[in-house]
Amino acid sequence: MRMYDLIEKKKHGEALTAEEIREMIAAYTAGDIPDYQMSAMTMAIYFQGMTDREIFDLTDAMAHSGDTVDLSAFGDRSVDKHSTGGVGDKTTLIVTPIVAACGGMVAKMSGRGLGHTGGTVDKLESFPGFRTSLEPAEFTAQVTRCGLAVIGQSADLAPADKKLYALRDVTATVDSIPLIASSIMSKKLAAGTKSIVLDVKCGSGAFMHGLDNAVALAETMVRIGKAHGRNTAAVISNMDRPLGHAIGNAMEVCEAMEVLRGEGPDDLREICLTLASKMVELSCGLSADEAAKATAEALNGGKALAKFREWIGEQGGDTAYVDDPSLFGVAAYTAEVKAPAAGVILSCNAEQIGTAAMVLGAGRQTKDSVIDPRAGITLVKKPADTVKAGDVIARLYTEKAETLEAAAKLVQEALTFTDRPVEQQPLVYRVIS
Amino acid sequence: MRMYDLIEKKKHGEALTAEEIREMIAAYTAGDIPDYQMSAMTMAIYFQGMTDREIFDLTDAMAHSGDTVDLSAFGDRSVDKHSTGGVGDKTTLIVTPIVAACGGMVAKMSGRGLGHTGGTVDKLESFPGFRTSLEPAEFTAQVTRCGLAVIGQSADLAPADKKLYALRDVTATVDSIPLIASSIMSKKLAAGTKSIVLDVKCGSGAFMHGLDNAVALAETMVRIGKAHGRNTAAVISNMDRPLGHAIGNAMEVCEAMEVLRGEGPDDLREICLTLASKMVELSCGLSADEAAKATAEALNGGKALAKFREWIGEQGGDTAYVDDPSLFGVAAYTAEVKAPAAGVILSCNAEQIGTAAMVLGAGRQTKDSVIDPRAGITLVKKPADTVKAGDVIARLYTEKAETLEAAAKLVQEALTFTDRPVEQQPLVYRVIS
Repeated sequence: MRMYDLIEKKKHGEALTAEEIREMIAAYTAGDIPDYQMSAMTMAIYFQGMTDREIFDLTDAMAHSGDTVDLSAFGDRSVDKHSTGGVGDKTTLIVTPIVAACGGMVAKMSGRGLGHTGGTVDKLESFPGFRTSLEPAEFTAQVTRCGLAVIGQSADLAPADKKLYALRDVTATVDSIPLIASSIMSKKLAAGTKSIVLDVKCGSGAFMHGLDNAVALAETMVRIGKAHGRNTAAVISNMDRPLGHAIGNAMEVCEAMEVLRGEGPDDLREICLTLASKMVELSCGLSADEAAKATAEALNGGKALAKFREWIGEQGGDTAYVDDPSLFGVAAYTAEVKAPAAGVILSCNAEQIGTAAMVLGAGRQTKDSVIDPRAGITLVKKPADTVKAGDVIARLYTEKAETLEAAAKLVQEALTFTDRPVEQQPLVYRVIS
Repeated sequence: MRMYDLIEKKKHGEALTAEEIREMIAAYTAGDIPDYQMSAMTMAIYFQGMTDREIFDLTDAMAHSGDTVDLSAFGDRSVDKHSTGGVGDKTTLIVTPIVAACGGMVAKMSGRGLGHTGGTVDKLESFPGFRTSLEPAEFTAQVTRCGLAVIGQSADLAPADKKLYALRDVTATVDSIPLIASSIMSKKLAAGTKSIVLDVKCGSGAFMHGLDNAVALAETMVRIGKAHGRNTAAVISNMDRPLGHAIGNAMEVCEAMEVLRGEGPDDLREICLTLASKMVELSCGLSADEAAKATAEALNGGKALAKFREWIGEQGGDTAYVDDPSLFGVAAYTAEVKAPAAGVILSCNAEQIGTAAMVLGAGRQTKDSVIDPRAGITLVKKPADTVKAGDVIARLYTEKAETLEAAAKLVQEALTFTDRPVEQQPLVYRVIS
């Protein structure tokens, strides 16, 4: 195999064989194919696409490029969820205890965040003592006892994907559906669960801006999962505005706990129940109706909150913070963004709100940035809400006073107003399974 | 300027600004843009193309990335020719003395060959003593005295193109018309002549296999030249079969001298007069008819041969070899390829004949290969010729006996036969000016 010939082949729109894809990924991971050839290949894939068979083979090659997790002890019960990422997305914190409370075995690896806010493990680290790194035996033992464990992603999980993603990130070849789908699914396959539910975000704060692309990505990932013997489904949800009101790590943990207490924002509650139902349906062998009933009961009856408390404690976190969220404290500096005039909020650019949160200290500007758990934004008002001049729309929190002005400006610019009623957009666009 | 943004822009089919192209080429040449970003860019250019304005700017940026030659002392008389390369292409050896005999000032830099046979400077080195490296002052002094000098390309001529071409060569992004055209023309612009005639080869032994592509490349190069104030024209000629009968360095020199003596193959003579006329027309301000008459007279009256002899002598070559070509000698080992049956030669794959010549020692397999001037092939018969079983079709020459068998097999496989008459293909498809 000569990499030159494979680039030429893909450039002309031909499909690579399974053997060619396997050898290419192995050689690239081993450092035997230089980055400048692989980036030409990824750009050719951007333009020519890949057949399903190629995508399956690429996913498989990357999934097997490093460690794979053996969850066979959990039979059909093991289940994972993945979100393509959005602003204010704290669903994992809510969904996973609901599913565990219903009998699913949630064994989840989660990445750290780069960008607007932290990833799930960053949010969990808001609990003093919470351990995001467990030995493999500890991890499976906790899933066995508690039905739920979430840890940081192993450094050697799908290393081919890690290397390829880093290259795509600097060569403008991230936004290719075959490459996104195989990247996400290679990690999910390596992580070993029998069932996988994907939350594909769509809108201004998501990677996929248009619904057509989001559907194509979701369908591709579902086909990949099924081709590899996994029960796979995808929920396409709205990320034209941030999810819930809180953006920022400890603030999102608190909002997630509100939902688990039966309070909290409706949009967040709805998407969490949709995702949890699908996960329970796939992993526990229930019908859709049975799964919806079980998850609603778990949430409303307090079982999910109890499971959350158990989970935080199992992983070393201080459960006093679950019982009394005020222990998380409030950041030292705060500011308010007010409505400039009376009207109705027409839109709220989620990506820009996310950037404002990052500026305040809630996210990482570079890999080495340190996250401030108390920094973030509370969106008091959201699209379709009516405001009077001077009403508080958002509250900003930070430990760095000098960031408030820039962040406030970003939030102001993220908002548009109208004087007519605004229709609520749907929260869940589609479920694919 | 962030290279990432430029890749993204080109990927989406937008045109880069002059400023962006200039900065990109400067930064890449300086090593400030990594190869993996530039190869993603070249692949995006392969798919999205470039506007004429972008191509002009790219050519200009590469032409000015290193040394440029000042030939302003020659006014409008300075003239260069460039061939996109073919098998058995010894036209420069014939065309340049014809043009110089007619009053054109031929100041030419020529590359060394990689592949089937050597480049023009390799062929010229068949003359003992011939110097292919002259100081700039020597070079222009010789052009002033003799009207003609051909030297090896300066290492610092269009270094951006050199670096970019090496990258394209290993990332399957050579065959993009904007990139080929700007690569060739950047060197021609830097080499400084007022007039440029391009010989664009088309067919099995050429870079451009189809006529449409060859025309598009030729037209693009002519537009680039004119946009930069150069008189530019292109001749599109047939390279479906080797040009003339001789393939190999000293063998091609001998065949070129045959043409200069008024002998030699008709096809070679015809293409040389076409190219020379165009060069004389552009550089001496003659009409097409006047130029055709002048070049035919120079060739037929012996003035071109005399100019050739003067030129070889000026550059230190032993002119005894011009007077007595048998001094070049014959390679130690030879073999014949014979017709397997009676018939008519339908086709002769020029590229494969070129490979056979390289195997015999006439070309370079790698940059460090040493060329054997006496190695090569004489094609006794060519397409449309009728043969009897056992007729000699080709004679092979080498200093390495062990290569004869493989080379003979390549030549046999390059030939196809028919039992019907074969129409002669045109030699010159089109002249673009």
